Amino acid sequence: MDAPIGVFDSGVGGLTVLRALTARLPEEHTIYLGDTARVPYGTRSREVVTRYALLCARHLAAQGIKMLVVACNTVSADSLPALADALPIPVVGVIEPGAQAAAARTRGGAIAVLGTPATVASGAYQAALRRLAPLSSVLARACPLFVPLAEEGWTDGEVPRLVAERYLADLRRAGADTVLLGCTHYPLLANVIAEVMGPGPALVDSAQATAEAVAQLLRARGLERRGDGARHRTLCTDVPERFHLMAERFLGRPVDLVEAVDLSP
Amino acid sequence: MDAPIGVFDSGVGGLTVLRALTARLPEEHTIYLGDTARVPYGTRSREVVTRYALLCARHLAAQGIKMLVVACNTVSADSLPALADALPIPVVGVIEPGAQAAAARTRGGAIAVLGTPATVASGAYQAALRRLAPLSSVLARACPLFVPLAEEGWTDGEVPRLVAERYLADLRRAGADTVLLGCTHYPLLANVIAEVMGPGPALVDSAQATAEAVAQLLRARGLERRGDGARHRTLCTDVPERFHLMAERFLGRPVDLVEAVDLSP
Repeated sequence: MDAPIGVFDSGVGGLTVLRALTARLPEEHTIYLGDTARVPYGTRSREVVTRYALLCARHLAAQGIKMLVVACNTVSADSLPALADALPIPVVGVIEPGAQAAAARTRGGAIAVLGTPATVASGAYQAALRRLAPLSSVLARACPLFVPLAEEGWTDGEVPRLVAERYLADLRRAGADTVLLGCTHYPLLANVIAEVMGPGPALVDSAQATAEAVAQLLRARGLERRGDGARHRTLCTDVPERFHLMAERFLGRPVDLVEAVDLSP
Repeated sequence: MDAPIGVFDSGVGGLTVLRALTARLPEEHTIYLGDTARVPYGTRSREVVTRYALLCARHLAAQGIKMLVVACNTVSADSLPALADALPIPVVGVIEPGAQAAAARTRGGAIAVLGTPATVASGAYQAALRRLAPLSSVLARACPLFVPLAEEGWTDGEVPRLVAERYLADLRRAGADTVLLGCTHYPLLANVIAEVMGPGPALVDSAQATAEAVAQLLRARGLERRGDGARHRTLCTDVPERFHLMAERFLGRPVDLVEAVDLSP
């Protein structure tokens, strides 16, 4: 099916999900929408997050997407049922695939979930892991400085290593055997996180797990596209300049054009 | 005059201005409004910033304030004329007082301006300093990690010192004799900044300079309040819980109540 996959996030972070998706499914068209006029969602109430998410999802649906990938952890935790009710297409979030991948990797040790304060406070990963890996203990840790470090491009060297040491030392001592990167920005810091956690634990990336879940769902529903010439559109809701710079950093490739769209309610 | 002073910021940062204001003018009533539903402003376009700022300013004006203090650097740089046109009361921003204080302190060396990427890119401090201190050179430096460090409460120790060293080392080597803290969050990191810059340069805080400017303007217009029992109200536009925690960190005192207000356009 030739229609594009829609990918939605509150800002630039979801581009790591888009990157994993286009690597896994290089023949698929995509449309990415970052709601940069209202980022960050993580400090907003559930009602406000759901209102913003519906605006964005309806805009993407109006572009004729065949599936919506919610790359934002906050929206995945708070608003997935509301989006699934509102749209006539499949809706995939990042939390369930990430938790499934972590549950498949643990060997009975503790699972450490890293996320923003909002994601950790929502308890969504913890609840999914208690269901999917009932024998494992779950340790959740909010790492608020990881997002600005990733956006600043400080992804190796002394500063991110010290910050990671401060957030992660007791998770390492607690013997975590699996570390779930439960925030779209954190894959950019994967090397530093792996270094601080040591050689034991497996790192599980929600972005890659979500790309795999999307691939399986497309196949199961017969919605795959076959052929060359996949097209990728990038939209954001405020001035595109800073977004453009970040987009190239997060995607690891040049981006032709970022289109600004007005989604004022 | 018994009416309160209104203080407006995009989030919690302006509380450092409120703190300086209540220290300088302990008899004045205040109402603080943090637009936490739309924070941060620093990445938004001028049109969007002005639209949000007008909403907030009109809400405060409707509470009967006698003066509006715009504690937000982005709004002070982008939208001060629009606010002054829209309101029948005096409007004071943070940039002009901060630049005046820096111009008064420099002894002909370079003035270093520290701010968010948006404030530095706006060029507002640089333009004011070229006018007020035409013989000084101005060096501006965006320090995006300082805001999350202040909000995380990591204001001393190895991590903030290394971050400050990375941002400030070449300003120190360039021989700056004055350092202007051009972001409302940065006073929380003043000790680390002073340590990294060494004993030479004077630190100038826009918050304190603004409090002094407000005191002078109140006196000049005969608007001062005399008497005990100053009351302080705190409003924000999204869920108050996280704001409350930050408010106590930024004000350095307990806060009774944070009121949520709905300013949806």
